[in-house]
Amino acid sequence: MADDAAKVSIVVFLKPGVLDVQGKALQGALHGLGWPGVADVRVGRVITLTLPDPATAEAEARAMCDRLLANAVIERYNVSVS
Amino acid sequence: MADDAAKVSIVVFLKPGVLDVQGKALQGALHGLGWPGVADVRVGRVITLTLPDPATAEAEARAMCDRLLANAVIERYNVSVS
Repeated sequence: MADDAAKVSIVVFLKPGVLDVQGKALQGALHGLGWPGVADVRVGRVITLTLPDPATAEAEARAMCDRLLANAVIERYNVSVS
Repeated sequence: MADDAAKVSIVVFLKPGVLDVQGKALQGALHGLGWPGVADVRVGRVITLTLPDPATAEAEARAMCDRLLANAVIERYNVSVS
């Protein structure tokens, strides 16, 4: 698991139709701080991890999302491996 | 603010030396679910937004991070504009 470990980055966002309360709150705060032009603020989370086998890393990461890291009902995720 | 709006993506992570409790918890859960090789799990947040002026978008986004979106004591952020 040294140099050949796969670095995985997973980004999880609420689906477009789902109200992003945290994003709305941030947008209001940014308007109040003097950025009235800020729009479409959305907040997601990003999870980085390493996996020992690059060949299976993406599939494993997607399985992790389905089982634990994302809520498929309201969220969608994006996996990238480097 | 139509086609020429700048899409900004901000990723905020705890600094490397800061204990990432959420990451440790996820790592333990993933080990328990049958992925013993998972390591270095870190959790951050990603904020996407649009700004009307692409020319100043990156500087504005950095100012937003310094004032509201990130805690400079324990976090570091990365801004990308597209």
